Amino acid sequence: MRMFSFTVAATDGAARLGRLETAHGPVETPVFMPVGTAGTVKAMTPEAVASTGARIVLGNTYHLMLRPTAERVARLGGLHRFMGWDGPILTDSGGYQVMSLAKLRTLTEEGVTFQSHIDGSRHLLTPERSMEIQDLLDATITMAFDECPPFPAEKADVAQSMRRSMRWAERSRRAFRERPGYALFGINQGGIHPDLREESAAALKEIGFEGYAVGGLAVGEPFEAMLAALDGTVPHLPADRPRYLMGVGRPEDIVAAVARGIDMFDCVMPTRSGRTGKAFTRRGDLNMRNARHRDDPRPLDEACGCPACRRFSRAYLHHLIHAEEILGAMLLTWHNIQVYQDLMADLRTAIGAGRLSACLDDFHATRALGDLEPV
Amino acid sequence: MRMFSFTVAATDGAARLGRLETAHGPVETPVFMPVGTAGTVKAMTPEAVASTGARIVLGNTYHLMLRPTAERVARLGGLHRFMGWDGPILTDSGGYQVMSLAKLRTLTEEGVTFQSHIDGSRHLLTPERSMEIQDLLDATITMAFDECPPFPAEKADVAQSMRRSMRWAERSRRAFRERPGYALFGINQGGIHPDLREESAAALKEIGFEGYAVGGLAVGEPFEAMLAALDGTVPHLPADRPRYLMGVGRPEDIVAAVARGIDMFDCVMPTRSGRTGKAFTRRGDLNMRNARHRDDPRPLDEACGCPACRRFSRAYLHHLIHAEEILGAMLLTWHNIQVYQDLMADLRTAIGAGRLSACLDDFHATRALGDLEPV
Repeated sequence: MRMFSFTVAATDGAARLGRLETAHGPVETPVFMPVGTAGTVKAMTPEAVASTGARIVLGNTYHLMLRPTAERVARLGGLHRFMGWDGPILTDSGGYQVMSLAKLRTLTEEGVTFQSHIDGSRHLLTPERSMEIQDLLDATITMAFDECPPFPAEKADVAQSMRRSMRWAERSRRAFRERPGYALFGINQGGIHPDLREESAAALKEIGFEGYAVGGLAVGEPFEAMLAALDGTVPHLPADRPRYLMGVGRPEDIVAAVARGIDMFDCVMPTRSGRTGKAFTRRGDLNMRNARHRDDPRPLDEACGCPACRRFSRAYLHHLIHAEEILGAMLLTWHNIQVYQDLMADLRTAIGAGRLSACLDDFHATRALGDLEPV
Repeated sequence: MRMFSFTVAATDGAARLGRLETAHGPVETPVFMPVGTAGTVKAMTPEAVASTGARIVLGNTYHLMLRPTAERVARLGGLHRFMGWDGPILTDSGGYQVMSLAKLRTLTEEGVTFQSHIDGSRHLLTPERSMEIQDLLDATITMAFDECPPFPAEKADVAQSMRRSMRWAERSRRAFRERPGYALFGINQGGIHPDLREESAAALKEIGFEGYAVGGLAVGEPFEAMLAALDGTVPHLPADRPRYLMGVGRPEDIVAAVARGIDMFDCVMPTRSGRTGKAFTRRGDLNMRNARHRDDPRPLDEACGCPACRRFSRAYLHHLIHAEEILGAMLLTWHNIQVYQDLMADLRTAIGAGRLSACLDDFHATRALGDLEPV
C-alpha cells in the first residue's frame, strides 16, 4: 500500500518543485486541480481531462452529499469509480459552499444546519459528518471542515470565525479515518490579518496535518491584499508539507502564488469561463462572443495542442458560442484546462531549472503583447 | 478526381448492400447520417462522431444560411473545414425547415419568403438560391429544393404541392453546379397517395438525379401508412441509384425501410434524445431520468463499446441527467449514435450474407426481451 508523502525535488526562491505520492498515484507540484463539482469536470470526459496533463481533480462535498448522496456514491464503489477518474481526488469539506450556496443556514459550535438549494431538505454538516462524507466518497485528500467569513468583515469576527475553524480542525483530525495513501489537510484562516494567519498556522501545526491549505482568499479582496496575506501566512506553514491555495485563480494569481511557495490550486474559472465563451491564452484572455472573431480562420492559440486549437478556427468557436452549441462549451473548457495545465508544466520545468524568475518575466511579457490582430 | 457513384454489392429481397463513392470518400450503405444542424453534431466532437463508425453527416441549409451564413462558411473554406469533418456531408435544401421553423412564410411559385427565427430578418429561398447556398457550403450531396405539405392534408393540396416540388426539382437540377464526386438528389413527394408518389417518381426520373429521396414521411402519419407509402414509392425509383428516406427515424422504422430497399437515413432522434436523457439500446429504449437507474451499477448496454457504456454506470448517467450536467448529454448522445451505427453495420453484414430476415427477427426478438431488471 502506497503511503501519502510529499517530497520537494527543487526550490527556486520560495517556489518548490514537488511530488505527492498518494493511494491513487503521484502528482507533480505545483499543480492545478480542475473542479469536478458534482462528479464531473463540467463538459469534459475523464479521458479529455487526463489528456491535458491533469492528474488530480476536485470534488465538492456540498453538491455530492445532496445529489447523488455520499452513501449512494459509496455503494457504487466510491467517487473514483463513479466518475471514471482513476487518479487522486481532493474533496472540499462543504463548509465554504454551505455558507455561499445553501439556504437558511444556522451556524453553531456544533456545525451548520442548512436547507438544500435543490429541494429545500434540511441537513446538518459538522466536522464529524464532513469527515464521514469525504470518507464515503473515498477522497484521496480530505479537507478539514472550516468556516469562511465574508469579505470584508470586522477583525473581531474574522478572529472568532478562525478560532472556531481551528476547533473544527481538531475535531476533523479526530474524526478522520486514517488510511495509507490518504491525507487530511488543515485550512488556515484569518482573512487579511497577519497575526490571525500566524495564530491559525500555529494551531494547525499543533494538530498536525498531511498538508496545509490557505483558505478565505480570492473572496473579493484586492490582488495585493491576497499577496500580502500569502506573504504573512506561507512562512508559518511547515516547509515539508504541501501548501494549497483554495479557489485561486487567474493565471496571474497562480504564478504569483507559486513564487510565494504555494504548491496546489483549484478554481472554477477555466471551466466556468469555457461555458460562457471566454478563452484563456498566453497572450491574454479572449471573449469568443466578440464579433471580431467571426471571420477569423486562425486557431485560438497557435501554441496550444488541444482539440479546439488543432482542428478549429476562431470563427467556428465564435459560431458555436453564438449558436449556444454544447460543442462550444466542450471545446473552450478543454482549451482552458489545457492552458492551465501547460502553465503549471512550464512553472514546474522553470523551478527545476532554477529559472522561475525568467519564466515569470516571460509570462507577463507575453500577456502584455496582447492578442494578434485578426487577419 | 473521384466521380460520384453508387454500386450495389449484394441484395437480399428488396434490401441492398451498397457503396457510395464521393469527392470526400466512400460510404457503405445502408447508412445512418447523424444530423449536424448548425455545423456540429450536437454535443459531439467530429472525432467522437467518426469513432462510432459514422462516415457521412448532415447539415441544414436553413440554419447555416442564417448563422454563420453560407458566404462566411465559403470564405472559411467550406463546411468540411469549418466543422472539422473530412468525410462526405449531405445538406438538406432548406425547404422543409423554412416551412416548419421560420416565421411569416409566404409561398409562391418563385420560392419561399420568410423571417429568420433568430433575428426576424427577411430572406427569400428559391431552388436557385438553395443550390447556391449548398454549393457555398461545399455539400458533397445537395438536395433539390422542395416543399413538404403538412400531414394530414387534402389530396388535392398534396398533389398541387408535389407538382410544384417537381417544377422546383427541375429548376434545382438546372441551377446545380456539376462537379466530379458531388451529387444532386431529387425528392419524391406525394404524401400517402401511391398514384401521386408514382407520378412524382416519373417526374424525377425524367429530370435525372444521382440519388432519390423519399420526402414527406415521418411527419405524423401512422407507422403502417409510412410503410405503405414506401411500398408504393420505392419500386418506381431507379434501382441503380441510392434511395434516401428523409428524417427517419426510430430503429424499428429503419429496419423496416431497409427491408424495403432504402439505403440512406437521417434523424435527430438519437442526438435530441441523448440531450433529454433517453437512451436507445438493443433491448429497447431507456429513460435515464427514471429513479430505477439511480443505484444501478451496470453499464447502459453490456454489448456497446461507446465510452458511456465502457466506463460508466447507469447510476452515474442518471445522476448526470438529473444534475443537468453537459457530460450527460455528451455521453448519451455518443451512445445513441453508436447504437444507430452498430445497427446499420449489422444490417449491412446481414444483407451481404443473405440473412436479413434472420437479422430482423433477432432485432425484434431482442427488443421484445426488454431491459434487464435492475440488480
